[in-house]
Amino acid sequence: MGRVTDPSEMLITTGSQEGMDLLCSVLLNDGDTIIVEGPTYPGALHAMRNRGARFLTAPCDKDGLIVENLPAIIEQGRKDGHKIKFIYSIVNFQNPSGATLSTERRKKLLEIAEQYDLIIFEDDPYGHLSYTGEHKPTIFSMDKNGRVVYACSFSKILAPGTRVAWIVGDATLMRKIAMVKQGTNLCTSVVAQALVYEYCRLGHLDGFLPKIVAHYAKKSAAMDEAFKKHLPANTIYHTPEGGFFYWLQIPGIDSNALFMKAVEKGVAFVTGPAFYPDATGKDFMRTCFTFAQPNEIEEGAKRLAAAIKEL
Amino acid sequence: MGRVTDPSEMLITTGSQEGMDLLCSVLLNDGDTIIVEGPTYPGALHAMRNRGARFLTAPCDKDGLIVENLPAIIEQGRKDGHKIKFIYSIVNFQNPSGATLSTERRKKLLEIAEQYDLIIFEDDPYGHLSYTGEHKPTIFSMDKNGRVVYACSFSKILAPGTRVAWIVGDATLMRKIAMVKQGTNLCTSVVAQALVYEYCRLGHLDGFLPKIVAHYAKKSAAMDEAFKKHLPANTIYHTPEGGFFYWLQIPGIDSNALFMKAVEKGVAFVTGPAFYPDATGKDFMRTCFTFAQPNEIEEGAKRLAAAIKEL
Repeated sequence: MGRVTDPSEMLITTGSQEGMDLLCSVLLNDGDTIIVEGPTYPGALHAMRNRGARFLTAPCDKDGLIVENLPAIIEQGRKDGHKIKFIYSIVNFQNPSGATLSTERRKKLLEIAEQYDLIIFEDDPYGHLSYTGEHKPTIFSMDKNGRVVYACSFSKILAPGTRVAWIVGDATLMRKIAMVKQGTNLCTSVVAQALVYEYCRLGHLDGFLPKIVAHYAKKSAAMDEAFKKHLPANTIYHTPEGGFFYWLQIPGIDSNALFMKAVEKGVAFVTGPAFYPDATGKDFMRTCFTFAQPNEIEEGAKRLAAAIKEL
Repeated sequence: MGRVTDPSEMLITTGSQEGMDLLCSVLLNDGDTIIVEGPTYPGALHAMRNRGARFLTAPCDKDGLIVENLPAIIEQGRKDGHKIKFIYSIVNFQNPSGATLSTERRKKLLEIAEQYDLIIFEDDPYGHLSYTGEHKPTIFSMDKNGRVVYACSFSKILAPGTRVAWIVGDATLMRKIAMVKQGTNLCTSVVAQALVYEYCRLGHLDGFLPKIVAHYAKKSAAMDEAFKKHLPANTIYHTPEGGFFYWLQIPGIDSNALFMKAVEKGVAFVTGPAFYPDATGKDFMRTCFTFAQPNEIEEGAKRLAAAIKEL
């Protein structure tokens, strides 16, 4: 994570999802606001909504969250009565956009958080899955004032069913989060923790990670090729350099209607509005390349193209 | 649990603690009220408080919750503006009192819940640990109208660190709880679930349970004997027929002051006020017999008696 951490700064959680839930529990009162990326991970929106959150959405481009827009969003939000508690960013190979926040923007984001006295929740489930070998410094490693809570997980690099993840951040905040966790489930399964620990200690993760990175990189390349070959020429996407997802925009299409048509043809995706708190993003869709084989990915792209044509 | 259940009525949780947290999340708005037993499990109070609960406390005797008092408590509570959402009862070998709710009172409790349109959360972590071989029917088995949520756990009969428990109840309510759980941690570790499943499937739990029951029964007997021999004659307690705990009252003593004195002598207990939402129960204390060896239990009783004498 780019800097030495003390055990008091760290908490094992039942998936990163729980880190989000607990952070919300500690930081939010009913009706408080979180700044999220548009688009963002729907599971985070679900956790946040369960804890009574409202949202302000900050747009993204191929380099992630456009941090230059944040001061205006924050200032207008505060004028409109929003009590903004934190900024939520998935920094690497974002879900769903696949974008990675540039190093310059990471620095700038931290400066803005300082300036407006906000916490950053730096969610990083995909950071280890870089298909170019490049890794950018975490915002957590730049933080001198306990303003960043960083979350990572074994879900995407070992198995999601282990439900073992971790958050690191300011020790006082972590202590509050641990107190809430005692009320929700006491602790994360020590059986699952022990298994993950042994797996890592014996070097299996170090051996497994390059294999899984190569495995997914091949599938990502297959999807890129299939999309270039089969999807309509007006389809817009940026080839991700890591992670799980392609984020497609077909200007003017209704992704909910397309979804029904696509399912008829035996192919599915997640519709764009799921990734926006206000259910915009109508002409976007997210596809995932991790499970299907390259030949299936090509077949899927063909069927998706046929569904688009029929719409 | 006394009746056949459908999978849609059941949810695996990360400990019973999580069942409580999720039920509160679904049923409570900020400031809503739960009727709890006085005394009750402090971890439940913690979960409930985190979800914004207020409390009404119903007194107990050696047969558990004195259900005859409930109508007056409910009616007065409602007059005082309490929005009562559910009744929380630990039905077998209660934590901390050791009391088991009589069958008559179980029936009556369900009738009262019907009459006043309340949910019952029937928490049963200790039910399998009966040292007399007697098991009373669950309230859940008597329920015809989806009014009872029953919780049980592997924590006390296998190992607490597995964090595998379950709740059963009305399918519609369970579905809502599952939705909230998706926001908090997606699911309970499937690694931990698979281990528990295999352990049970191979018959190890069936083999282990009689051993652990005999093991704890011996320790309970040792504590009973040691307390009868060493504690002052005015000490009041009911010998539990299962579970983990003795609940001692020494009229007039300040258990917080006694705790400091006892710790000096190298023996500890949990002070009474921890078990009441309003921190009453000053002259009560809870002792646990599961970890110490019989000779250590006797030594502990001696030291506790010496601390009482010095106070």
